[in-house]
Amino acid sequence: MGAESRLKQLGIELSAAPAPMANYVRAVQVGNLLFLSGHGPMKDGKLAHIGKLGRDMSVEEGRQSARAVGLGLLASAREALGSLDRVKRVVKVLGMVNSADGFVQQPQVINGFSDLIVEVFGEAGRHARSAVGMAELPMGISVEIEMIVEVADGAGAARPKAAAKKPARSARPAARRPAARKRRR
Amino acid sequence: MGAESRLKQLGIELSAAPAPMANYVRAVQVGNLLFLSGHGPMKDGKLAHIGKLGRDMSVEEGRQSARAVGLGLLASAREALGSLDRVKRVVKVLGMVNSADGFVQQPQVINGFSDLIVEVFGEAGRHARSAVGMAELPMGISVEIEMIVEVADGAGAARPKAAAKKPARSARPAARRPAARKRRR
Amino acid sequence: MGAESRLKQLGIELSAAPAPMANYVRAVQVGNLLFLSGHGPMKDGKLAHIGKLGRDMSVEEGRQSARAVGLGLLASAREALGSLDRVKRVVKVLGMVNSADGFVQQPQVINGFSDLIVEVFGEAGRHARSAVGMAELPMGISVEIEMIVEVADGAGAARPKAAAKKPARSARPAARRPAARKRRR
Repeated sequence: MGAESRLKQLGIELSAAPAPMANYVRAVQVGNLLFLSGHGPMKDGKLAHIGKLGRDMSVEEGRQSARAVGLGLLASAREALGSLDRVKRVVKVLGMVNSADGFVQQPQVINGFSDLIVEVFGEAGRHARSAVGMAELPMGISVEIEMIVEVADGAGAARPKAAAKKPARSARPAARRPAARKRRR
Repeated sequence: MGAESRLKQLGIELSAAPAPMANYVRAVQVGNLLFLSGHGPMKDGKLAHIGKLGRDMSVEEGRQSARAVGLGLLASAREALGSLDRVKRVVKVLGMVNSADGFVQQPQVINGFSDLIVEVFGEAGRHARSAVGMAELPMGISVEIEMIVEVADGAGAARPKAAAKKPARSARPAARRPAARKRRR
Repeated sequence: MGAESRLKQLGIELSAAPAPMANYVRAVQVGNLLFLSGHGPMKDGKLAHIGKLGRDMSVEEGRQSARAVGLGLLASAREALGSLDRVKRVVKVLGMVNSADGFVQQPQVINGFSDLIVEVFGEAGRHARSAVGMAELPMGISVEIEMIVEVADGAGAARPKAAAKKPARSARPAARRPAARKRRR
């Protein structure tokens, strides 16, 4: 099942991709890699989930924050690619948790994000990851996550692998045929 | 206008690329991606801008730190590529701000870097980004930034895309022309 | 000398790759880039080296932590690639040091990792790097490191560069030779 169908089955509706807070863009694609900016947790188009883990929030609330970040990242990936069905693999994630002194359960918090991604993409959602504790995050948000996604080659996309391979392959017969024909005559 | 001309127009002269502080190199290129090491703010060849945001420095001083980091990153990118005109796109930036407890304006600080990059590269400078708060940074610097840049195919560089495409392209006419001439005779 | 022979010469035996702590995988390869998850320092299959630099540990103990992280990353890279001889270049490293207030020697700590990598891979081990101070790390470990590695083309691997280059290279002589022979006649 594609990621878009799976989202529907899970009853998840993505909001519009969140607007960047400053002078940057949500995502940049190079070849078949899509690099997504650090996203914070949004609710109804506004930053939400303000607070530090280990002081203002429980691990469970942290997990919900991380899941909310995931929904924003999915919205941004869909906007960049047209459809989440073009995600071939979720590659690498940096999960940053706003951590009070002594809070060491960053992996459990970031699982709120990782569990969502695996629900939506299945095996293709299983990613490399770091989960770490930050001193502070913008506006005091509890979680910020950035990710790198592999994009499937397909219509309407920049696809250097296809572009590099196909001309070479189709050039060969075209270049060889006339000469070969000559020799045979 | 190319990035090198734009730098001249802005009256910006880059110093020599800063020497790494330890056992690493400033930049490594793989294919058309150039990965640059985390850079700190330099002034006259030495680390400068020591201090924590929210305790020792104003947001405006932080912005100046981030801009100084940007100048060092540009110097390192130029050294790696020969010319900044070979930068096709600034892809992804991790902006790390040395943050005292309660400081949450990391995006405004890192804009000092991002604004410089967009001044120099225009649309090609618009990048994906995370801006986050660190507990500490090496030597107590206020800002450390790492970035990934897409490199245009071109002379004098390791250029796997070019190597794959150009021989095929230039081989075709060379192979076809003699045969075509023969046929016309 | 290959990295595997070099490991033997150094008398280093890698343990099994460490199990991920949560819902993620140790490494994901896209094209010729292998992205490795953040790893902590392990000893006898368990997390070790718990503590903050600048409070619970000396710089030398931190260096040992970073070296231990490196051994785990090598084990995970070998597991992903079959052999460390397939590592073409160590590209980019993010070295994160659990740092008490005022600890600013992150580069010296992360050198424990970088020195190991250069011992094992020689020039190919010289990498781009950021070394930074975190508020907290999972389970209170002293160091967490993630890295990106370039993989050599080879049997059994996804190898987009080889696929793109080889047809073009072998096509050229084949296409040019007959025409050239014709002209000389």
